[in-house]
Amino acid sequence: MTASEIRALFAVASRPEVVSLAGGAPYIAALPLDAVGEMLGRLGSEHGSTTLQYGIGQGTIELREKICEVMALSGIDVGCGASPDDVVVTVGGQQAIDLVARLFLDPGDVVLAEGPTYVGALGVFQAAQASVVHVAMDAEGLIPAALESTIASVRASGRRMKFLYTIPTYQNPAGVTMSEERREQVLDICEREGLLVVEDDPYGQLGFDGDAPRPLRARRRDGVFYLSTFSKTFAPGLRVGWILAPHAVRDKLVIATEATILCPSAFAQAAVTQYLTTMPWREQLKVYREVYRERRDALLDSLEDLMPAGTTWTRPSGGLFVWATLPDGLDSKAMVPRAIAARVAYVPGTGFYADGTGQRYMRLNFSFPSPERIREGVRRLSGVMELEMAMRSVFGASALRPGQGGADVPGSQLA
Amino acid sequence: MTASEIRALFAVASRPEVVSLAGGAPYIAALPLDAVGEMLGRLGSEHGSTTLQYGIGQGTIELREKICEVMALSGIDVGCGASPDDVVVTVGGQQAIDLVARLFLDPGDVVLAEGPTYVGALGVFQAAQASVVHVAMDAEGLIPAALESTIASVRASGRRMKFLYTIPTYQNPAGVTMSEERREQVLDICEREGLLVVEDDPYGQLGFDGDAPRPLRARRRDGVFYLSTFSKTFAPGLRVGWILAPHAVRDKLVIATEATILCPSAFAQAAVTQYLTTMPWREQLKVYREVYRERRDALLDSLEDLMPAGTTWTRPSGGLFVWATLPDGLDSKAMVPRAIAARVAYVPGTGFYADGTGQRYMRLNFSFPSPERIREGVRRLSGVMELEMAMRSVFGASALRPGQGGADVPGSQLA
Repeated sequence: MTASEIRALFAVASRPEVVSLAGGAPYIAALPLDAVGEMLGRLGSEHGSTTLQYGIGQGTIELREKICEVMALSGIDVGCGASPDDVVVTVGGQQAIDLVARLFLDPGDVVLAEGPTYVGALGVFQAAQASVVHVAMDAEGLIPAALESTIASVRASGRRMKFLYTIPTYQNPAGVTMSEERREQVLDICEREGLLVVEDDPYGQLGFDGDAPRPLRARRRDGVFYLSTFSKTFAPGLRVGWILAPHAVRDKLVIATEATILCPSAFAQAAVTQYLTTMPWREQLKVYREVYRERRDALLDSLEDLMPAGTTWTRPSGGLFVWATLPDGLDSKAMVPRAIAARVAYVPGTGFYADGTGQRYMRLNFSFPSPERIREGVRRLSGVMELEMAMRSVFGASALRPGQGGADVPGSQLA
Repeated sequence: MTASEIRALFAVASRPEVVSLAGGAPYIAALPLDAVGEMLGRLGSEHGSTTLQYGIGQGTIELREKICEVMALSGIDVGCGASPDDVVVTVGGQQAIDLVARLFLDPGDVVLAEGPTYVGALGVFQAAQASVVHVAMDAEGLIPAALESTIASVRASGRRMKFLYTIPTYQNPAGVTMSEERREQVLDICEREGLLVVEDDPYGQLGFDGDAPRPLRARRRDGVFYLSTFSKTFAPGLRVGWILAPHAVRDKLVIATEATILCPSAFAQAAVTQYLTTMPWREQLKVYREVYRERRDALLDSLEDLMPAGTTWTRPSGGLFVWATLPDGLDSKAMVPRAIAARVAYVPGTGFYADGTGQRYMRLNFSFPSPERIREGVRRLSGVMELEMAMRSVFGASALRPGQGGADVPGSQLA
């Protein structure tokens, strides 16, 4: 499948008759849109001469201070050296990854990342002509022993390794969370090996069963870049994210962002600042958590009730995604057109591996569709899978056209 | 001067007591802010479930159609192959340049550009590890014979040349406009030499004395990338620009922007679309033109009245900038701290040359300060220059600390 074929599929997937479990979109309708609209209007009419004007590359000090308040909730506070001075505001979480990549990656470099990992990060590393080497994970996240052996084998191959990219909490796409113990082990290994850590944490505040383990950055002052975004906790349409960077490289990030976008939107920054200052954003987080918990439950229950034998899946305690493993012999990528024909969409696992593997997996999103739609989607998906298995048993493997590799799924559909 | 020193200087320059002729900001107060605010509010309250959500990498079809209407005003229309399908929405004009650079530039490549040229473009090319070779210009813009000889000498040196980056209309920083005749000559040369043209046109609709000559893209269907932005005609705080790309590379640009920012802000795109659909934007353009014409006149008159003998300057018929040449022996970069002390700011010419030359020039902005402030700024500047000349004649050249090269002025101050 080419990029344009996949794009065409997603265009079909966005039709109302298709249940899309493919997206990564928050449920924006849960926001108090009247109040948000009123706030945005005032930012234009009363403060337009600053909010509609250019700003500075690093982002406003007001927003950077608010970002520090948000991070403090997760334990990243003054005590571990977090300061507005070291925050760089970005165009969503995507630009945060891109800026770090620009700073560190040369063609041929190696980046370590969980396998599977965020498709948008793979796009960044590919654009930087770096190679991603995946590190295995299980239900407790990245496996420290696998990290050690991967580092050793990359070192042995003589290639330069620049950093570990990890989404430790409610991982995209796998939905798993790195345990407390492993967090310390992973940090110890990276410290010992002199490997930087890029911690991507878009979902950390979306836990359903109590708080997530503290971020890596809350445990180590040095050697960890912390990346996050307001796309999942407020609104992705404003495109506001951030990097908390080691002080020594903060200026370099600012120069890189100036070369890329000059400065982040003053209006979007003012909107987020105002939202965090005047609106009940902690309550809104609870609303999001409650909505997503109900939908996760709907997805897990539906999978339990409807999936064919041999299918397994993760049980996320937060975030937006479940990662399912198909019964032997099914190919999630080859199955996409038939799923779309049956009016259900998902992202095949191949999108989340740099090497084009992952045909046995699929990512299922539960944040956007309603519980009823989720159940209907799983019902349709299950029908497609059962048909595939029947065809395979009658006509053999050749009946199911295999996938042909490539990970170029349009990122904006997969956030 | 280091980047942080210059940043500190600009922080000082933004104090109310300093007249800043250094910026590149539009005069946002000329917008009907109440009406704009009301419009932005409705986009949140009535359309929040789409405007606050993710969008697609290329940008909305609604905005891309409006962009084609805007371009048609300058003669870039269906007749010359302009189509919404080939427009990619960007985070301001800066990301447009960056995306083209990402697509084409490898380390060591050569980019041709006017000397002087936009500091933010130099930042992009530097980040891409490309070398900028400047092509001389005069009051009629880029000099075709200089372009030919520069191409020949780069070819002779064996280096790869990827494109000509040009701002043909109301150039930043020089304020000059490429004549009709030269536009055809430049296009002919580039076509003959197989050199792509990247036409950056942020100011083309801000002409004071009738319309500008048609853009290069209106004259050639092939081989020209056309870049523009709503930062000067509506509001930079929204960060919305665009590229009209040759069809064959449109997909590559979309993949590159997805890797950089995932997708442009749905809210900002809806704001621009709504502005162009429901508000009298053509009338607003006239307002901007009228305001800037008055301010240009104030600047030119003040320079005429107050500048020391030996100073010369360009006479722009549109845009935001005048380019001044200092009397022999003065160094605009070394003079910056003393100008700031005298409560006036400008950008030294060194910011606009890749090779750190340009000490004899300064860029003066007339779009943001009022006519009275412009006159007061020129009065202060003239005082500083006269003092420099007096010191030089008494103590010799060593009294004036020379500049030390480097072009890393923070871009957001210089748009």
